[in-house]
Amino acid sequence: MFKMIAMFKKPEDTEKFDEYYFGTHIPLTEKIPGLQRVEVTKFAGDAPYYMMCEMYYENKEAFKEASKTEESKASGKDVMKLAGDSVTFMFGETTNG
Amino acid sequence: MFKMIAMFKKPEDTEKFDEYYFGTHIPLTEKIPGLQRVEVTKFAGDAPYYMMCEMYYENKEAFKEASKTEESKASGKDVMKLAGDSVTFMFGETTNG
Repeated sequence: MFKMIAMFKKPEDTEKFDEYYFGTHIPLTEKIPGLQRVEVTKFAGDAPYYMMCEMYYENKEAFKEASKTEESKASGKDVMKLAGDSVTFMFGETTNG
Repeated sequence: MFKMIAMFKKPEDTEKFDEYYFGTHIPLTEKIPGLQRVEVTKFAGDAPYYMMCEMYYENKEAFKEASKTEESKASGKDVMKLAGDSVTFMFGETTNG
């Protein structure tokens, strides 16, 4: 599969961040056509990041098609509003072991 | 689920790295008791990392138990030999959206 990953640095107010992230941003993201799965990981201890969100698509082509939709643009705009200066995006193909 | 993540910086010789990683390290890792799934992602473009390996366990307790095994120690020793100065480990609970 192809996935887009958002890595978040620790926000100043984690409670406020989480509330907006899970209450508003994730529901918005889940509307993206072609997005098959969303997996969020909250890191423990002294990790260099606070949280990671993995968004799975069938393949790169499906991701590229999804990126053109209004839903994808809305999700992208929303995450930049929430964490524009503390989020890093990465993209890649997955393999199982 | 609980997952352990290894983030790898780009190695000097990616071909040699990949050959050892997929040919020797992953088979060794897959022997760890309690390890349910391994997902490797190779990043595209100018990502801050070359590759990521996610190792899934039922929960934190299962991960802790697994860590005590000889198989886990062998995998840990092997990855340090391969990429000791270019790997970052992170740990966390996953949620689906």
